[in-house]
Amino acid sequence: MTTSSAPGKVYLFGEHAVVYGEPAVPCAVDRRARVTVEQRDDSRIRVEADDLSLDGFTVTYGENPDDADVNVPGDLVAAATGYVDGAVAQARDAAGVPDAGFSVTIESAIPLGAGLGSSAAVAVAGIDAATRALGVELSCGELADRAYRVEHDVQEGQASRADTFCSTMGGAVRVEGDACERLPEPPDLPFVIGYDGGTGDTGELVAGVRALRERYGFAADTVESIGDLVREGERALREGDVARLGELMDYNHGLLSALGVSARSLDAMVWAARDAGATGVKLTGAGGGGCVVALDETDATETALEYTPGCESAFRAELDAEGVRRE
Amino acid sequence: MTTSSAPGKVYLFGEHAVVYGEPAVPCAVDRRARVTVEQRDDSRIRVEADDLSLDGFTVTYGENPDDADVNVPGDLVAAATGYVDGAVAQARDAAGVPDAGFSVTIESAIPLGAGLGSSAAVAVAGIDAATRALGVELSCGELADRAYRVEHDVQEGQASRADTFCSTMGGAVRVEGDACERLPEPPDLPFVIGYDGGTGDTGELVAGVRALRERYGFAADTVESIGDLVREGERALREGDVARLGELMDYNHGLLSALGVSARSLDAMVWAARDAGATGVKLTGAGGGGCVVALDETDATETALEYTPGCESAFRAELDAEGVRRE
Repeated sequence: MTTSSAPGKVYLFGEHAVVYGEPAVPCAVDRRARVTVEQRDDSRIRVEADDLSLDGFTVTYGENPDDADVNVPGDLVAAATGYVDGAVAQARDAAGVPDAGFSVTIESAIPLGAGLGSSAAVAVAGIDAATRALGVELSCGELADRAYRVEHDVQEGQASRADTFCSTMGGAVRVEGDACERLPEPPDLPFVIGYDGGTGDTGELVAGVRALRERYGFAADTVESIGDLVREGERALREGDVARLGELMDYNHGLLSALGVSARSLDAMVWAARDAGATGVKLTGAGGGGCVVALDETDATETALEYTPGCESAFRAELDAEGVRRE
Repeated sequence: MTTSSAPGKVYLFGEHAVVYGEPAVPCAVDRRARVTVEQRDDSRIRVEADDLSLDGFTVTYGENPDDADVNVPGDLVAAATGYVDGAVAQARDAAGVPDAGFSVTIESAIPLGAGLGSSAAVAVAGIDAATRALGVELSCGELADRAYRVEHDVQEGQASRADTFCSTMGGAVRVEGDACERLPEPPDLPFVIGYDGGTGDTGELVAGVRALRERYGFAADTVESIGDLVREGERALREGDVARLGELMDYNHGLLSALGVSARSLDAMVWAARDAGATGVKLTGAGGGGCVVALDETDATETALEYTPGCESAFRAELDAEGVRRE
C-alpha cells in the first residue's frame, strides 16, 4: 500500500482576473486529500471514497466507467472517478505500465465542489501514490504538470495551473499565465473558512465576467485593478503585514462583487465575519456559492459563521507550507 | 400663509466619486418636504415639524436656538432647526428684511437622515416659501445656490451642490464639480427604495474613501471607474435603456462596496431586491446605512424588502420631473 496526501487551497487574491493574465495568489491550507493505492492483479480500478461525497461510495470499474457497479448518481461518480481515472492514467504513462490496476482509497477532508481544490488534491496525491507504487519517483514539477493535465481533461479545458501547482508545492504561490512560483515564507495566516454547502457554475461565472469585460471599459479596468491589488498583496505578504492583507482581501471581495460573482450566501458570511472582527474576508474561488475565507486569529469569526444562516460549516485552516506528502 | 414643496432624491449613479470631480446623476423622487411659512409680528422663528423626526416636535426660538423651549434631544433639534434657520436667514437676506420672523410648519414625506435629501428639500422649500412671503421671487438658479449655502453652513463645508440643485430643478440631474445641469427627459424609472432606519456617518465614510484612494492606486482607479460608469449611464438614460441602467447600478454598488461604504443591512436589502428580480439595485447616498434604490416595475422588490430583516420601510418613488413647487 502506498499513500500520499495533498492539501486543498484558498485564493488569498486574484481569482477571475487570473484568466486574463493578471497574477493570483492561492495558498495551500491544512485540509488534505489522502489517497492510498494498492496494485491489483488485474488492470481494473477500484475506488473507495470517504467524505468525497456526503456519504462516500465504492465503485469498481474496468476500461469503461459506464459499466461500473455503484449505487450513487452517475454524475457524481463520473466527476469523482474522473480525477482518479486521470491520475491512474498519468501514473501508468509515467511508469510505462499501461495495464496497471489499482485499488484506490480516498479520504478527503476537503469539501467536494466547494472551490477549495479537492479535485486538484486528489489528482496530485493520486498520481504521486500510483507512480510510487509502480516504482517511479516524479519531480514536483512533473507531478504538478501531470495533475494539471488531469484537471484540464476532466474540466474540458477550463482548468488553471494554480490549483494543482499549489497543492503540489504547498505554501503561498504566485500564478501568472502559465508561470507558477512558490512565494518565500509567508507570515502566519489564521484562515477561517465558511462554506455555504453549495457550488457556483464556474463556466457560467467566467462567461459572465468575460461579457462584462467586453461590454464595458470600466469592467476591464476592474480586472486590471485586481492585478494591481494582487501585486500590493505580494508586498504585504513579504512584509508580513497581516492587517494590510485583510484590507486588501476586503477590497478584492468588493471588486469581485462588482464583477457579479458573489452570492447572497457569500455576502451573508462576509458580513458575519466582518461584524465578528475578522481582519479581512472575501469569497474564494469562482464564487456564485461555495466558500469565503477570512483572516482571524481569534475564535470570533468561526463562531459567528457557525451561527450564520446559510453557512453549512465553518472551520479553521492554517496555511500549509507542505505540499504533496508521502504518508 | 405661503407654502412651497421640494422633492427628495436618490443617486442613480456616482456618489462618493463626485467628491473627486467625477460626474454623478442624482434623480428627484416624488417624496416631498412641504414648508409653510407665516410672517410673525416679532422677529422670532417658530418651527412645527411633522414626520421630520419620528414623533415630530415643535420649537420656538429667538436669536439663539440654545434658548429654545423643546422636549426632544438637543442634537436632533440643532440639526433640524439648522436648515430652517439657514433658510430663513437666506430669505431675509434675499428680501432685505433682516428682522422678519416666521412661524414655519414642515410636513415631510422624506425620512430624515436617510440620505434621501430631506435637508436639501427643507432648505429649498423653506427659502422659496419665506422669500415669497416677503414678496420676492427668486430664480431657480439663485434658489439652488442659496439652499446650497444653507447646507454648506449646517454641514460645515461637507455639502455637495447636487442635492439642492436636484431638489430645486427636479428630474434627473448631472453634477460634475460645481457644474450642475438638468438632463433631458429620462425614461420612466420605477424606483423602489428600501430604508434600514439608520444613517451612516457621512464625514467618516468620505474620509475612509479618501484614505483608500491615497493609499492604493487601484482605489483611485475605482473612483475613476465610477466616473466612466456614470458616463455610460448617461448614454443609457438618453437611450431609455432601463435594463442597462440596472446592470450599471449593480456594478456601481459593487464598486462602492470595494470602497468600503456599504453595510450589512444595505447588502441584505440589495440581495433581497436581486432575488426578487429587480432590474438593478444599489445603495444611494453616503452609505454605511440608510437606503438602497432599486428599479422594478413590478411589486416584487417592494414586497421582498418589506419582509427583509433590517429593512424598516420600503416604498415606491417615481422620478419627479418637477422640482420646487408653489402649493
